Amino acid sequence: MKSKQWLLASRPQGEPTEANWQYQEVDAGDVAQGQIKVKVQYISLDPAMRGWMNDGKSYIEPVQIGDVMRAGAVGEVLESNAEGFSVGDKVYGSFGVQSVAVCDTKGVHKVDPSLAPLERYLGVLGMPGMTAYFGLLKTGLPEAGETVVVSGAAGAVGSVVGQIAKIKGCRVVGIAGGKDKCQYLIDELGFDGAVDYKNEDVRKGLKTQCPDGVDVYFDNVGGEILDTVLTCINLRARIVICGAISQYNNTTAVKGPSNYLSLLVNRARMEGIVVFDNAKHYGEAAQEMAGWIAQGKLKAKEHVVTDIETFPDTLMMLFKGENFGKLVLKVEHD
Amino acid sequence: MKSKQWLLASRPQGEPTEANWQYQEVDAGDVAQGQIKVKVQYISLDPAMRGWMNDGKSYIEPVQIGDVMRAGAVGEVLESNAEGFSVGDKVYGSFGVQSVAVCDTKGVHKVDPSLAPLERYLGVLGMPGMTAYFGLLKTGLPEAGETVVVSGAAGAVGSVVGQIAKIKGCRVVGIAGGKDKCQYLIDELGFDGAVDYKNEDVRKGLKTQCPDGVDVYFDNVGGEILDTVLTCINLRARIVICGAISQYNNTTAVKGPSNYLSLLVNRARMEGIVVFDNAKHYGEAAQEMAGWIAQGKLKAKEHVVTDIETFPDTLMMLFKGENFGKLVLKVEHD
Repeated sequence: MKSKQWLLASRPQGEPTEANWQYQEVDAGDVAQGQIKVKVQYISLDPAMRGWMNDGKSYIEPVQIGDVMRAGAVGEVLESNAEGFSVGDKVYGSFGVQSVAVCDTKGVHKVDPSLAPLERYLGVLGMPGMTAYFGLLKTGLPEAGETVVVSGAAGAVGSVVGQIAKIKGCRVVGIAGGKDKCQYLIDELGFDGAVDYKNEDVRKGLKTQCPDGVDVYFDNVGGEILDTVLTCINLRARIVICGAISQYNNTTAVKGPSNYLSLLVNRARMEGIVVFDNAKHYGEAAQEMAGWIAQGKLKAKEHVVTDIETFPDTLMMLFKGENFGKLVLKVEHD
Repeated sequence: MKSKQWLLASRPQGEPTEANWQYQEVDAGDVAQGQIKVKVQYISLDPAMRGWMNDGKSYIEPVQIGDVMRAGAVGEVLESNAEGFSVGDKVYGSFGVQSVAVCDTKGVHKVDPSLAPLERYLGVLGMPGMTAYFGLLKTGLPEAGETVVVSGAAGAVGSVVGQIAKIKGCRVVGIAGGKDKCQYLIDELGFDGAVDYKNEDVRKGLKTQCPDGVDVYFDNVGGEILDTVLTCINLRARIVICGAISQYNNTTAVKGPSNYLSLLVNRARMEGIVVFDNAKHYGEAAQEMAGWIAQGKLKAKEHVVTDIETFPDTLMMLFKGENFGKLVLKVEHD
């Protein structure tokens, strides 16, 4: 059985290009003891992937040159030599950017397709949802009545952050690019306000939308937007550093937040998060979020692109701000 | 009775110059009901004064053009029309850069000259000591066995931070400018190591002196040094933002920490502090620190410059890293 694969061919300088990838179709291989073979159906495309393409120490090992690109994915078990997994099971795992994966079962878990469409397990019911849940609640520590601002607000993490903050009784303002996204935040997700960074002055927008200042800022983008929000924070504000997508393709140094001394003036805090630290508590979080979804308080949106051949271009949509909702790659099988 | 005064004449662009100050000798004025007249003996010179010279919102109002420059100071009560204060009392207050102050008693408190030389109440027993105590213990949260790094380590705040961290059982490394200061940190204050930022590569120095990485960083300087320490922090490190003296005279934007995404990778925290928030607990802190001083565990060093006429030049010593210990201006009286 053939697997279509995207390998990391070289490390990018700045934006990833076609030259950094190698496409191949190879035999998926035999299923050894303890392994499963998975028909990959949806592949998660995430900003963090850009970091994994770099060499050097981070919160996770870099992908090695010549390896299948790392990615979370969902699919169906085709063969199993592993305890606890049967043919036909729907599973989530780090299956990589390939159409068929043969792998051990570390980090693989079953998902229930009767509860939600499979691709949702890559979004609100997957790592982005968990990132939003734990990052906001454990590090952002929002209190009812406070103002929460989130950037990348129409993205996989940001949209969930804003909705959870609403559930917790906060005033919620999203920063997103384009009128459609901003309208969606307000009309569909119930945000109190939105700032369109592509078409308006972010500082003015924040001043208008956050008349009482910013108590919690959940940052997915870094760069100028982080710097601008720093000028609007309140005493003892909490800034959650989840990502910095505006900086991931820099060929020069990352832009540090020039206004970081606002932390001093406001006795405020900036703290980084990595979702994996909460792995022991994913179950509880998933249960609570499933409840909110059932009650209609938490909505999901996926941006599905077909097929695996488009991977290099589709990944770039993240960095251009072209995805609307959680970006996933759908893999067609004959 | 004449008072020698330094007024803020204009707001500096970059480094303060003589043109930003106006010297005058004026009658100190009458002591109204509720007021005291104080013979100012030692004036505290602090990096924060640079910020007070700027217009704009901060944690405290800016000094207005034409006003006596704000400064903490200690002196002796010459006349009192205020309850609780008698002629001859030694007092601390925000008396400003002047030789005789007539003021109300808000924020004024008596100090005991039999316990310590008067100038010490501007250093280890004053705001710098309190800043170190609360900033390190409440925000840095050092645990025995952890590595604590402090910049401006031979300064008023840094020297106390390092000594308290030693008392708490930490490995302590100071960053300071010049061999004398570094030797002093190790020989006199008991630091485990020192990095001389004027004569060695800070990153290499930290790698050598902090073989187990950095758990707590107490930052008084900002700029390149903050950025470098960010590359050496451990998981869940705490960075206390106390000041950024390297940036206070910038005419361009403050240099933000380019390596702030190390907070994400390491799930670390950066938090600002302002000492005044702890005013209710100064008493307890002073008591504990007095105990450490009595036991010889906490040493003080003041850098005393005479006389008030030298104020503009003496203040600049802070920004050139020329002070060795707490910088105070001694006021001579006939």
